[in-house]
Formats: sequence, structure tokens, C-alpha cells
Amino acid sequence: MAAQELTGYQAGIDVGGTKTMFCITGANGDILLLERRSTAAHGSPGLFFDWLFVELKHLLQGISLTLKQLEGIGIGFPGVIGDTEGQLSQAPALPWPVADIRPDIRRYYEGRLYLDNDVNLALLGECWKGAAAGKKHVLMVTVGTGIGSAMLLNGRLYKGANNAAGEAGYMVVDVGLARSRGSASGADFGPLEAVASGSGITALARARFADPAALPASRILTLAGGKPEEIETRHVLQAAAEGDYAALEIMDKPLEHLAAGIASAVVLLNPQLVVLGGGVAASGDYYMNEIRNRVNAYLPYPVDLEAAKLGNTAGAVGAVAAAANILW
Amino acid sequence: MAAQELTGYQAGIDVGGTKTMFCITGANGDILLLERRSTAAHGSPGLFFDWLFVELKHLLQGISLTLKQLEGIGIGFPGVIGDTEGQLSQAPALPWPVADIRPDIRRYYEGRLYLDNDVNLALLGECWKGAAAGKKHVLMVTVGTGIGSAMLLNGRLYKGANNAAGEAGYMVVDVGLARSRGSASGADFGPLEAVASGSGITALARARFADPAALPASRILTLAGGKPEEIETRHVLQAAAEGDYAALEIMDKPLEHLAAGIASAVVLLNPQLVVLGGGVAASGDYYMNEIRNRVNAYLPYPVDLEAAKLGNTAGAVGAVAAAANILW
Repeated sequence: MAAQELTGYQAGIDVGGTKTMFCITGANGDILLLERRSTAAHGSPGLFFDWLFVELKHLLQGISLTLKQLEGIGIGFPGVIGDTEGQLSQAPALPWPVADIRPDIRRYYEGRLYLDNDVNLALLGECWKGAAAGKKHVLMVTVGTGIGSAMLLNGRLYKGANNAAGEAGYMVVDVGLARSRGSASGADFGPLEAVASGSGITALARARFADPAALPASRILTLAGGKPEEIETRHVLQAAAEGDYAALEIMDKPLEHLAAGIASAVVLLNPQLVVLGGGVAASGDYYMNEIRNRVNAYLPYPVDLEAAKLGNTAGAVGAVAAAANILW
Repeated sequence: MAAQELTGYQAGIDVGGTKTMFCITGANGDILLLERRSTAAHGSPGLFFDWLFVELKHLLQGISLTLKQLEGIGIGFPGVIGDTEGQLSQAPALPWPVADIRPDIRRYYEGRLYLDNDVNLALLGECWKGAAAGKKHVLMVTVGTGIGSAMLLNGRLYKGANNAAGEAGYMVVDVGLARSRGSASGADFGPLEAVASGSGITALARARFADPAALPASRILTLAGGKPEEIETRHVLQAAAEGDYAALEIMDKPLEHLAAGIASAVVLLNPQLVVLGGGVAASGDYYMNEIRNRVNAYLPYPVDLEAAKLGNTAGAVGAVAAAANILW
């Protein structure tokens, strides 16, 4: 590992649609501060970064630091970011139009700056201080509302020709189903995430309980307060972990589809490790064990598959690693 | 392009199960010689390389060169090769046991040596002088008896943690079908290539004509001399290109499965270009157009898809590029 390469204070910030995580580290890479704030809903990047830097300065002040003392700042966004330009696009979770955000950041900070997609930075976080520490070939798949992925190949983030690599949610693991959906270009979700994400699991479960005349006996409904329309992914996962038959039945397809997608990515990329992140993957042993077994059933050779360790701090921690240009 | 980096004569050799291709280039990267020989069926690497270097010396002699004048030799094999060790494994097309082949080569040649998998070198060939000239992010998929792939990412071959990257034949694009086959570890073919390779197409066609009482009227059977058991992939491809209904029907599944696999690889890797190589892809416009349309129907954004240009010389040409350490 290369924490020695950190020579000063660094800030890593993970901007989410509802919450923003701040991480500040010292010269040896130790985490001095890790704090979460509600993301300001300002409709322009200018106002947003006014807010962000007020928060950052305030947090720095609390540990007797100033912005000028920061050697680097890394910031992750839920969108696609051009490598060098700082052009943020495809960020529906943020209330701004597509924008070049670099000038708005430069009004406040002149030091080393690294901007990237949040999943890429979460992977860097896991590679620095989490489940993938010390690995050089890592595939991270995040399963939450949608499905995303990021890749560390030969020790570097791989982003593709147009920074669009890792769109695992658009993988095709069921040709018949994907074909019947028609073109992917107009769809909210890709064919894999339509089934295997949290949104997919919730939709499958609600459909299963949609007919009041034929409600199956299931822990799911109890956990959802008896209201089918209030079933959430976590209810299905908990009921499945407890062995509830309807829940196990509902989970079969999402698990099998995700396992097929991960297996396809593994035979292409031959990673040392697959890290599973996001809210669904964090639900516990039931989910991880199912995915691990089903992925390996598809593979000609076994692969290690671990749950992410840093939870919702991975992006901010990874943003520090990126700002400090830590190499693996 | 970087042909300027070639400073001397180079040899590239592509060892196949039945044929071996030799390529010799001059200081400016021009191809001085390109010759194919039947591969000697010697059962040990020692005897095999005795034969290989006799052939090479003979070919060099014909253009007034000697082994000592070669600045580098690149050799591709149909198998998995350890990066530095020269340990050749998983090469069922060759009649040797698993072996460390480097000492046998060093008996004849002390200069710069590069050993790699044949698909990796075919990709390098296409990137140097073929369909992908000048590109930095390229996915190559070869469709022949089986299905293989290779990746140029950020201008370098990507090989994975254990030199096993690119096993596209093991991708899962039809969960139901793949699951019903059981574990992949014992199978001859991966789930994608079992359907979409030349072997898959032949098997589907022969099955379609297996019942003599229910033979469909089709060009396929005419092209195969009226004998269902002699149907080959090329008969199906030619009949389909001519609009034969039974052939189009047979091709639907192999085309759709390969397109789904390529689409999955594209959303993960975001390449600038996909190059399709191997005998099946070389069959003409019908096949390429079908694949191009079906891949793009699955993608959220379009991708360029081109047929390989160098045919069966790509591996030997790429072996030169590798030997000369040409960078993109």
C-alpha cells in the first residue's frame, strides 16, 4: 500500500442526491473527520458549490484547519464526468443542468483537484482501506436503486473511451426478456437492473402481492405492515433471510440475473476479487452467500466475492485516495 | 502510429493447431514476408521448436537474413501463457503437455522474445495494420469453432489477474439455458459459444434436419450435398445470406446470443470499436450487418462494429508488433 505517498491534508467529498459525505485525512492517510450532511438542493452549480465550500470550511475549522492547508480535494458525483474538463453530465440525481463545474470549484480552491463518478471513487475507497485493499484487478458492482460497476485494472481505474465504462445495469443476461423490452436507449433502467436492482426486487414483490384475492402467506407482508404497496426491497431480503418461501421465490430471478451478469464480467475481466456494494448487497449473509454460490456455478474457475466494507463512506474515502493520487 | 519505433528486423509467428503463419518485417515496419506452413505434429515442445526454428531460418535465408539479425521474435499460441514465465497451459489444439516453452526457444534465439495468446496477438495485429488502426480502446471477438475475445484498454493489451481475461465464450446471455446446462467447469464449451460459435451453428442446423420425415425445403441441404450430417456452418451462413427461410430461422438464436454478449461487454468496457474476427465473422455482409444491428438494439448508445481486416495473418502481424513493443 501507498499511504506514504500522502504528504499533506486531503479532503474527499462524495456528493449524493440526498446526502453528501465529507472525509478529511492527515499526512499519514489517517482519517481525521468523516461527516455526512444533507445535500443542498440548489438548482445551479454556482449556488451548490457556494454551499459545499461553506460546509467544508466549517468542518475544517472544527479540526483547526483551513482550505489552503489542503493539498488536494477529490469530489465524486452521481454522474458521468469528463476526465480533464470537469464536464458533468447524466446526473439525474442532482438538480442542475449539465455543466462544466470546474470554474465554480476553482473560485474556492486552487490546489490539486480530482473529479470523478461516485462508483469509481467508492471502488478506490474499497481498494485503499476496504474489502479490496492491496488488489490490482477488482470489479466492484453496486446494487441499490439501480446497478452500477467500476473496475480497477492493472492497478488503475478503467473508465473506457468516453468515461462510460461500467454500465453493468445494461448487461444482457436474458436475451428473450431484453429483446421483448425493445431498445435500451429510451428506458429508465437497463435490462439487468430492471430485474436485479432494488427497484427490480420491489417491483417483483409488489406484483406478487398485487391481487388481494390471492395473497400468499408471507413474512414480507407482515414486515410491510400488511400493505402490499408499501413493500420495500429490505422487507423481501429480511423475509428471505428468515427462510420465508414467497420471499425466496421472489428473490430467485434477481439473484440469478445478477449472478449471470457478474459471471459474464468475470470471464471477460478475470479480476482477483469482486466487491459487492450498495444497499442491497449490504443486507447481509443471505444475499452475499446466494450471489457467491450462483456466480461460481456459472464460472469455469472460482472467483472471490466479498461485500464492500466501507458502506456509504467508501466514495469520500476513495475521493481522498484519488486526490492524493495514491497508486496501487 | 508508432512504426518508427521499429529499429530492426522482427519476426512474428502465429502457431495454430494445423497451420503456422510466419511474418518478417523490416526496420520501417514493412512486411517483407508472410508465409503459412502446416504445423508440425511433434508431441514435445523440444521437437516442435526444432521444427519451428528450421522453418524460420529457411524463410529468413530466402530473403537473405539470419536469426541473429532479428531484433525480436513474437510468438502466439492457442492457449494461456504466463506473462513472464513462458508457461503454456490450456492449449488443447497443440499436441504437447503443459510446458515451460521458454528454454526450448532460448536454445535457438537470445534476443527480445514475446509470447502470448493468439487472440491477443490478432488484436494487436488489427490495431497495428488492420481494422482498429490508431484506436486505444478496442474489444475483439473471434467467432470460429469456439468464441474468444481480447481487449486493448488504454492502449495496452488487458490480460487479467491470471492471464485468463477475454473468455467471452463463457459469458451468460440466457440465464435459463445456462442454468439448465449445470456447472461450466466440466463443459467443453462455455454457454455463449455453445450456441453462437461455428460449432453451435452447425449443431443447431444438423438438429433441424435430423428428422428425415420432416426435412424443411432449404438451400442448406443442397449446399451440403443433400446430407444433413455434412452440414457445416458455412452452408448455413451462405443460405441465410441468400435469404433462405430455414437458414434465417436457424441463425436467429446464434446471432441474438452473440449480440447480447457483445452488448454486455460494450456497456462494461465502453470501447471505441468492436472488431469481429474468426471464420464465422469473415463470412460476409449478412453476418456483420445482423450482428451490428442486434448489438446496437441492446445498447443505450451506439458502438462501431467492424470485421477484422487481416484474416488469418492478424496473429503473426500482431506478434511482430508485440516483439517490437509498439505502443499505441
